[in-house]
Order: sequence, then C-alpha cells, then structure tokens
Amino acid sequence: MSKGIYLDNVPLSEAVRKWREKIKAEKVCPLKSEIIPAGQSLGRITGEAIFAKMSSPFYHASAMDGYAVRFADTFGASERSPKRLHLGKQAVYINTGDPIPDAFNSVIMVEDVNIVRQRDSETGLQDVSEKLMEYIEIIHSATPWQHVRVIGEDIVSTELIVPENHKVRPVDIGAIISGGHTTVPVRIKPKIVLIPTGSEIVEPGAELRKGNIIESNSFILSALVQEWGGESVRFKPVPDKISEIKKAILEGCELGDLVVVNAGSSAGSADLTAEAISELGEVLQHGINIKPGKPVILGWVRNTPVLGIPGYPVSAFITFNIFARIIVCALQGTDLPEPECMTAKLSRQVASSLGQEEFLRVKLGKVGENMIATPVSRGAGVLMSLVRADGFVRIPAMSEGLGAGTEVEVELLREKDEIDNTVVCIGSHDNSLDLLANVLKKNYPGYSLSSAHVGSMGGLIALKKGEAHLAGTHLLDEKTGEYNVPYLQRLLGDRGIVLMNLVYRQQGLMVIRGNPKKIGSFEDLLREDIVFINRQGGSGTRLLTDKYLREKNLSSADIKGYDREEYTHMGVASAILTGIADTGMGILAAARALDLDFIPLARERYDLAIMKQYMDTKPVSAVLRIIREDNDFRRSVEDLGGYDVTDMGKILYES
Amino acid sequence: MSKGIYLDNVPLSEAVRKWREKIKAEKVCPLKSEIIPAGQSLGRITGEAIFAKMSSPFYHASAMDGYAVRFADTFGASERSPKRLHLGKQAVYINTGDPIPDAFNSVIMVEDVNIVRQRDSETGLQDVSEKLMEYIEIIHSATPWQHVRVIGEDIVSTELIVPENHKVRPVDIGAIISGGHTTVPVRIKPKIVLIPTGSEIVEPGAELRKGNIIESNSFILSALVQEWGGESVRFKPVPDKISEIKKAILEGCELGDLVVVNAGSSAGSADLTAEAISELGEVLQHGINIKPGKPVILGWVRNTPVLGIPGYPVSAFITFNIFARIIVCALQGTDLPEPECMTAKLSRQVASSLGQEEFLRVKLGKVGENMIATPVSRGAGVLMSLVRADGFVRIPAMSEGLGAGTEVEVELLREKDEIDNTVVCIGSHDNSLDLLANVLKKNYPGYSLSSAHVGSMGGLIALKKGEAHLAGTHLLDEKTGEYNVPYLQRLLGDRGIVLMNLVYRQQGLMVIRGNPKKIGSFEDLLREDIVFINRQGGSGTRLLTDKYLREKNLSSADIKGYDREEYTHMGVASAILTGIADTGMGILAAARALDLDFIPLARERYDLAIMKQYMDTKPVSAVLRIIREDNDFRRSVEDLGGYDVTDMGKILYES
Repeated sequence: MSKGIYLDNVPLSEAVRKWREKIKAEKVCPLKSEIIPAGQSLGRITGEAIFAKMSSPFYHASAMDGYAVRFADTFGASERSPKRLHLGKQAVYINTGDPIPDAFNSVIMVEDVNIVRQRDSETGLQDVSEKLMEYIEIIHSATPWQHVRVIGEDIVSTELIVPENHKVRPVDIGAIISGGHTTVPVRIKPKIVLIPTGSEIVEPGAELRKGNIIESNSFILSALVQEWGGESVRFKPVPDKISEIKKAILEGCELGDLVVVNAGSSAGSADLTAEAISELGEVLQHGINIKPGKPVILGWVRNTPVLGIPGYPVSAFITFNIFARIIVCALQGTDLPEPECMTAKLSRQVASSLGQEEFLRVKLGKVGENMIATPVSRGAGVLMSLVRADGFVRIPAMSEGLGAGTEVEVELLREKDEIDNTVVCIGSHDNSLDLLANVLKKNYPGYSLSSAHVGSMGGLIALKKGEAHLAGTHLLDEKTGEYNVPYLQRLLGDRGIVLMNLVYRQQGLMVIRGNPKKIGSFEDLLREDIVFINRQGGSGTRLLTDKYLREKNLSSADIKGYDREEYTHMGVASAILTGIADTGMGILAAARALDLDFIPLARERYDLAIMKQYMDTKPVSAVLRIIREDNDFRRSVEDLGGYDVTDMGKILYES
Repeated sequence: MSKGIYLDNVPLSEAVRKWREKIKAEKVCPLKSEIIPAGQSLGRITGEAIFAKMSSPFYHASAMDGYAVRFADTFGASERSPKRLHLGKQAVYINTGDPIPDAFNSVIMVEDVNIVRQRDSETGLQDVSEKLMEYIEIIHSATPWQHVRVIGEDIVSTELIVPENHKVRPVDIGAIISGGHTTVPVRIKPKIVLIPTGSEIVEPGAELRKGNIIESNSFILSALVQEWGGESVRFKPVPDKISEIKKAILEGCELGDLVVVNAGSSAGSADLTAEAISELGEVLQHGINIKPGKPVILGWVRNTPVLGIPGYPVSAFITFNIFARIIVCALQGTDLPEPECMTAKLSRQVASSLGQEEFLRVKLGKVGENMIATPVSRGAGVLMSLVRADGFVRIPAMSEGLGAGTEVEVELLREKDEIDNTVVCIGSHDNSLDLLANVLKKNYPGYSLSSAHVGSMGGLIALKKGEAHLAGTHLLDEKTGEYNVPYLQRLLGDRGIVLMNLVYRQQGLMVIRGNPKKIGSFEDLLREDIVFINRQGGSGTRLLTDKYLREKNLSSADIKGYDREEYTHMGVASAILTGIADTGMGILAAARALDLDFIPLARERYDLAIMKQYMDTKPVSAVLRIIREDNDFRRSVEDLGGYDVTDMGKILYES
C-alpha cells in the first residue's frame, strides 16, 4: 500500500545534525521579549540582561537594633573608663533597617550599652531645677561604619543582577525587585501547535465504537511543552484526508512557532503527513533508525518547522522529546539540558537489532549497594511501560544487545531519591501487591514498591542474585505438600531469609461469564472445542497446573493452547475475556476484576520471602509494617475476593 | 529595648522535631481532593489511586499495516509452496490500529505479502465471464494473534495506573486518559498566606523615601510556594502595630493553611510578631541556633500553623525553605524531597561560631577534575549572595570552621550541568567581566562565567592551586615597567599559561561629582579634610597606589582611611558616592557607572592569564572566542568608557 513515499533509515545523530543545520539556516532565534510583572516571572527566560536601577539599601541603614553614634565620640571608651554619650544628642536609638541619621557614622548594638540617668551636674549647671538626663554608657570604642549596611551593600546600582537567557528563580525575583524593577523582560513563550490526526481518533470522554482510539498523546506532549516553559495549542483531531491535514498544517504555521502532526507519519495507506508536508513545503527527513520511533518526519513549511511523529505513545514521547525540544530551546535561547543519569547493572540479558538505536525502558531499584536496571515491556504501544519505567537505556545502533550484569547509563524519568527509596519485589504476581504499592505510597509518600512479575521461581533467583529485597512466592512442593520452604532451603539455604505470609488465596479455572462452554473440571481442557491459556514456566500457578495434569494422568500435548504463556493472572484473565482463550488457571481476584466466572480448585499459600539484611531498612520495614498492622490494607485485600488474611504478616520460616 | 520576649537558642534539629510533633498532634493531614480535567493535572498530587476504567486497546487491534487472516488458513505456507488467500474473504487489508474483524485472529505484515491476480479457474468455474480475482500470496504460516495488539495490551481494566500521593507527570496524564478518565482527583493546593510587616516596608514601584525598604521577600517566598505546588496569597504590608498584625494573622488563619509573618520576628522594639502570635495562640519556639536565620517563630493560632520569619532576605529564604516546606508537604501528602547535593573542596578556610549551625553560601566551579567551592558573602542582608551562589554548605554547630581543602557536601541552588559548564575566573575585577559573563550566556546559553574578585595576586595563586581556569590580572613590575609577565614567571613558571590582553584601561582618582573638595593630585590625599578608601593588598590597583606613594615620597600613615579596604572598583566607587570616603583609586568605568568624577593618572594593561590545559574545553574556548571575535562585546566594553580594546584577544606571552 506504499504511496511512493518510502521511509528512510538514517541514524539518530545524523537526523539531529540535519535538524540543527536547518534551524541555523532558517535563522530560528530566540523569540522577542514581553514585559511582565517581576512577581510573575518564575521559570521564565530573561530576554535581556537585568542591571540594577538603584542600590540596595539606597541609604546607610542600621544592621542592628542599637544606637547611632559618631565614632569619633567613642574614642577611649574601655572597661576601666567607660564613656557616656548623651542620648538624643550624641546617640540616637535606631531599629534594624532604620536610616543612619545625618552626621552619625557608626552603630553600637543595644546589648553593648547601659542606659544611665544622671543629673547634669557635670555640665556645670547648679540650678535646683536640674533634670535627670539619659546617657548610654559604653566600654568599647566604635569603628567607622560598624553595624551599618552601607548603600549598595547588597546591590550596587548598575550592577548585573541576572544575564540574558537566564531562567528566573525565586531569589532572582527578589533581587530584581530590590534592584528597583517592578517588571522584567522575558522571552515570549514558544507556541507549539499540536495536531492530532487519524479518522479513528476521538476526544477523551466521547462515546467509543470499536476501532476508535482515545486521543491522549497530545495531552502528554502538551504537558511536556509546559514543563519546558512553552505553551501549546491543541487542534481538534483531523481525519485522514490530505486536504484537511494540509489545511490544519497551514493554520498551525500561522499560529505557532512549531507544528507537530501526530500521527500518520509512517508509510501506510492512511499515512498522509509526509505527503501533506512535502506538498506544502519541504520534507528534510522521513524515517530515523531508532526503536521505538522510526517513522519521524522532519519538515519545514512557510518558515515554520513541522514535525511528524508516530502514533504509538512511546514513540511519540521519545521523538517529541528529541526534536521538539531542540526547537523550543532555540526559541528560548537556552541550551538543551543534560538528562539526569544514573549508572546501573542490567538484571538480565537484552537482545537488540544491529543497526538500530534502541531506547530501552527500565525499572531501577537499589538493592544493597547495587543499582539494578530491569527492562520492562518494549512495545511502542505500551504507554504503561513509560509510566512504570524509571528511565531509558540507550542501546547503540552498533550493538546486538547487552549481557546480564552490564553497567549501563540510565537517563532518569523519576527523581533519584524516589528511586533510592523503592522496595524491589520480584516474583509471582498477586493482585494484593497493587494494593500494597498504593497503601505504601499513601502512608509513606517517600517510598515506592516496584514489582516485576517473573513467577515464583524467578523471584527466588532474583533474591539469590541480589536483585530484589523481597519476592512473592507460592511454590508447592509435591513431595511434602509444603509451600515455599523446601524451595527456599534448596535455592537460598545459606542466605538469611524470612518467610512471611501475605495471603491464602483461591486458585481455579477462569471462564467467560455464564460459562457458555460448560467447563466443569480439568478434564474438559482436553475437549476439541476448548482453547487453554497457560502461565509461564517457573510460576507457582504453572506448577499447580502441571500437578493437576499429573495427578489426573492427562497429557499436556492434548491441550490446545498449553504452549501459549502469559506472565500474570490478569494477563490470563484478559485473554479469556477477549476470546483469545476459553479458560486458564488463576486467582479469584483476577476473575472478579474482569467479571469472569470462576471454578475453584485449590486454596494456596502466597508468601513473601524477604532478605533479612534489608528488613531494617526504612522502606522495607515500612512495607512490613503495613502487612502486619494496617487494617485498611487487610480489609481492601479481603474486598478483592477469594482471600484469607488470617495469617497476614505471620513469620512462617527463618533461615 | 527588650519587651519581655527573649530569643531562645535551640538547635535546628530540635526545632524541626518540635514542629513535626506539633503537626502530628494537630493532625495536619493531606488536603481534600478536587476533580480537575486530566489534561490540566501536570505537577499536581493525586488525591486517590487511579485505576483504569477500561482497557487499552479495548478491542483487538492490528499492530501493523497488513492483512487480517485466520491463522488456520495459513498452515503449510512455505517458500516452496506459497499459499494464496482470497482477498476480501480469507484476508482483509487493515491499517495499524484498525480492529481485527470478527472471525480473524492474526495479521500478516504488508511487506510479507504478494498481491496476485488470477482467473478463478481453480475454483472450477469455466464461465467465459470468469473474473480476475485478487489474492495475497504468503510463504510463511501465521501464528495465532501475531501482530495483534490484544485487548488490554497497554492497560488492563481495573489496573492501578498511579497511586495516591503521586505527582502527575506527562506520561501519567496520557495513561489516565487512555484508561478511560477525563478528569482526575488531585489534592487542593495548599494555600500559604504571606504577611509582610514593617512600617518601613513599601510596595515595589512606590515612591521611596529614606528609610523605606522595597518589599521583595514575599515575592521570593511566593515563587518558592509555586515551585512546591502550592499557592500563595500576599497581604499588603502591615505596619508595626500589634493590633494590625493580630488582625492580619487572624484573617490569614481564616484564609490559608499556613500563615507566614515576615518580619518582626526578632526581639527589638518593632518586633511584635511573637507577641501577636502568643496573644492569639501559642508560640512553640522563638529563636533557633542557625546563621543566618536565628529569629524564627514557630507558632499555632486557631488550628493554623503561623510562622514568623526574619526580615533579612537570606534568613527569610533559608528558614521559609525549612519550616514552610514541611507544612506544604504534610498538606500535599508528599515526602520532603532530598536536596540535590554535590561534593566539593573548599577553596579557602572558613571560620564559624561554635554552637551555631551555619548555612554558608558558596560558588562552585569545576576546574579539571576538582569541584571547587568558594564561599561568597555571609551577610544575611546580601540577597545577591544567594543569586550568585551555587549552593549551601552546612557547617555543623559543633564545628569552629572548616580548613581549606576540606571536602564538603553542597546543597545545590543551580543545575548540575550548569555548574559543570561554568568558567571560573578568579582575580582582579574589571567591569568588562560583567559584560563578558552576559555575552557568554547570551551566545552560549549552556555556559556561565563566574568571577570572584580577590585581586590580581589572589588570582594567580588560585591558578597555581588549580582553582580557576583563568585570572584577570594587571600587575605592574616596577623594575621592568612590564605588566604581568614577570609575576607569571615568578609564580607560575612551570605551568602552561597563555597571557591574553583584554583591555587597556584608565586608572585614576574617583571623586564625588563636581569634585567639591577640589582634589587634584595624589598629594591631596594627605590633606586633613580628605578621607581615602583603599583597595586590598595583592590587587593591581593597590600596587599602583603604593607605587605612586613611593615615587612621590608620601607616607601611607599620613593618609586617613588608607587601612580601610574594598575588594572591587565598584566597592570603592560606592564608598565615595555614599560619603564614606572622599576619594579612592579605580577605573574610569566604575566612576562612570556611579556618575562620579574622575582624575586620570595612568593607563594600564589588564590581561587574562589562562591555564593552557583548559583552553580547549568548550566553555573556556567559547569565552576566548568572544574576546577574540565578538564585535558587539568589543563595542559594549568601549561604551563603558576609558577602555582601549586595540589588543583585545592578542596573545602577549606563553609559557
């Protein structure tokens, strides 16, 4: 369905170079200034250097509560011969900040002074009506201008307060105002026009029909622009019609400093963005060798940069961040900020296509002294992978992948201290972990629980490799009939582990509501008309499934779908709800969440295996406190359905 | 003038503990939620956990441009025996994102398909009207659900998108909208009431009389609140009258979640804040053992925290940052963020009072591999010290100071990469350095020039100690009459140094406009009615002064004010303008800036000594490029007056 437009495949660095060269050639330069009240300039970029209009203080002011004096009058004062100065004549009380009266040139602190009253006999008056006069008595002489804030001590008139192209901080505002300004020239905010396109795209809140996609990308992009200090104008979604797309782009060029078309940037039959841009102006580049984000269009229409970015949210986020930000910085007169980075060790091997630069999303967790990076979903359409990720690892085009344990540089998507305070839970999935994560954040806002779902066995291996603080596990030992302990002894015998119960829960077969295929027992899995969906090897649920098969002497080869694996209970439930499969093993809570019917088969124990050495760290002990003491948490787990929380928080084994 | 209120002196940690305990006792808890459009929630704090209302995608969607097929129809396709599927019946073209039509369950990419037309003879029709039918030809069989984004691939209905107490980021907004929400419950913004007090305080822009202070603190505090995600209400300045202050506090308690009174928090005659708070409610603490910032008041009035903070801007900034932020975080349900820190080496010794915790402001600069922290002004009233500072070093109460070279932890006030890209210039001051700093920031927004003024000799010593990239110097060697080179050879003989001319400039005596005391020559400095102001030892200007004295056989002991030293030309000019002295040596540019008269005495060479090893670093080479090539810079220096820029950028010596 190609329309004569082929995607190119240049390296990212080459595309960035082209974009920058074009920016230079087109003379994209910082926007003009607007004059705004200084008090409203936080975060804005100065449009010119701000010099002080006046000095601060603009008069000699007392730096202390005390007495203004002439320093010459104080010469000779000592403990043995204190000196008295006539109050009102030789000394005047002043508060901090008061101007030093003319003819005075020093201040003595109130603490260093005694007030004395004396009859003015010393003056030679012998009158009976002689009055009590007030004096200050001092025992040290004063130095010139002591305790005086002289004119310009803070700001000298004409001095540079902040340079041009400076992002205004709170203290700058104070200095600008103290320097005699009430307004400040700042760069007009770059205006970014966001044009969502696609006939399938509908506004948030609109009634949805199959095939519709809720337009959410522009809200992400708009928030990014806001973070960068620009402003955005969002157009209503434009259908896939070349005339309408062209009209929108032209309108956008009138209105904004950068036009972003999202999406239609690929080369399919509905991908009209490149065609529209090339008919109106110039396509500099179509297609960049990155993953995700390949189908980017760098264009220019009527003196305005026009960017076409892919529709998948992760691709849109990554490419907008690179190419739109370059324009915004050029318009602000600021430099592209360096991303915050952190070094971490990859927890597992990652393969990558040679010749393509990949932006791998990872979760980070500090376990002991090691910062561990665990890759999350790589799908360009999985926005939740960005929500959950703590950062990006860039895998260079010339690499075929990275081995487990490789030191990688991670560009952060979350704050460093948030990452440092994350409890890493790797292992089996249970819906109560979502609730636990939420209660932790609610009660201890500084801490987070990050859980990766790799099955019970995967969790114990992660503990062994020092990549997790705790692991969720429900491994049934067939010989002894005991849960978890035999596996811990075998795998982690020499490590200090505490096994704490979280819940007992119902496992069973999930089926679509009403059970239309009348599935009643495990034997039904062999029926010709039944498609099963399995859990991955190493998960406790898989072990349970295989145990049933053995007990009932059923062959897995006879079960359709036995080879298709999901990684979570919710994944299995979702597959059943959506008709990919008819049934699968899982917990009651997952069935309830997606309104499935449930055929109970077993009650099993779900425990947390905790590395002893981390139990006293603040984040882990906060998690354990919730499990042991938080009644709201307990109740909300029960509300999920199918849970017995009698032993929640009970220690079942220690090594 | 004590009013029966004495300042206490508890350690900061103790005051913070009290404050937190009170917050707990008074049950200050996160504010209620308000429902706002999801698109406007950037940076807000979630008021409850957000779970997905629907799955995304909510139908099986094609992940590729291609053909929807039934995977069973594709079995057996291979390169040797391709398989043809009837277009429209067995295969349907779909774009990325289109729903998979019912009864189809797999997608083949458009690239993997050949379109073929054939007469439908194979179907057995022998009709002459037989038509050309379209087929897709494939050479690989498809797997179930390949290239299909199944329901919930991104977000599964009921899944946790973001927890409670989470600060909303751009990607979160996208996921919240994709999860079926149009609005989001976020915490109401904490409302902070700012009450400026003081009879001397006037609004920015008002006409100023001696004794007035422009109210700028509340604008700093308001901007801080904005950065923290709260909102502020600023009252008009309240005069120092107890009844009015009490009225304002009560109004503030009605209106806001925290009331901040600035200032009147000390114990002087105009310091009424503590009295006002204690009459209305409770003073928990008055006076904390920190510098700057001692006179803090922690109070509580009618269920509302009331904070009294000092009037000096640096004190206000520091104490507000500590105590107001604790309240704001408690009201938001967020954790106090860790300050960004950096390790650095102190460039010089710092004495500190035992028993008092000091917040020392420092400038940072990376010279080679060393991050150097140089203390700046310690005055609580010097707001510019905060503007110029890159961070704080906390000197513990139990320390009497820190030695030169001590490793210190610096809490940052600027971005790390900005600090990394700062050119450190230590040495003699010239007004053209301010212009150079501004042009650098304008043309290379990522780079900064930080200049510390310690005199020419101090600059060369800083180069020797590896604490600066370059140094401004104008040291005249009396024997040879040559500038700078003899000193470089003596002090830095073995280091690679390039000496580059910046300017020739006029040195002379500055006097008040109109020269009322008729100062005409150096000999006048000995007059009884003349007060001189000097430059510090080691500065080129001081050497010049002393050279004149020797040449003319004048004794410095006969000059009043010879012992009073300023560190910059502008400092000297300011002292003259404000009547602290009658005259002093300096450059014409400084006299012009403050509108002083000038008696020219000498033309001198002002050079930059640059460490060769840093000349090729990007920030330093940017500075040198401006000096060599930037005609705007050249012109603006000439406009300062008294400068000859003929040799600007010329290399005069290399070692």
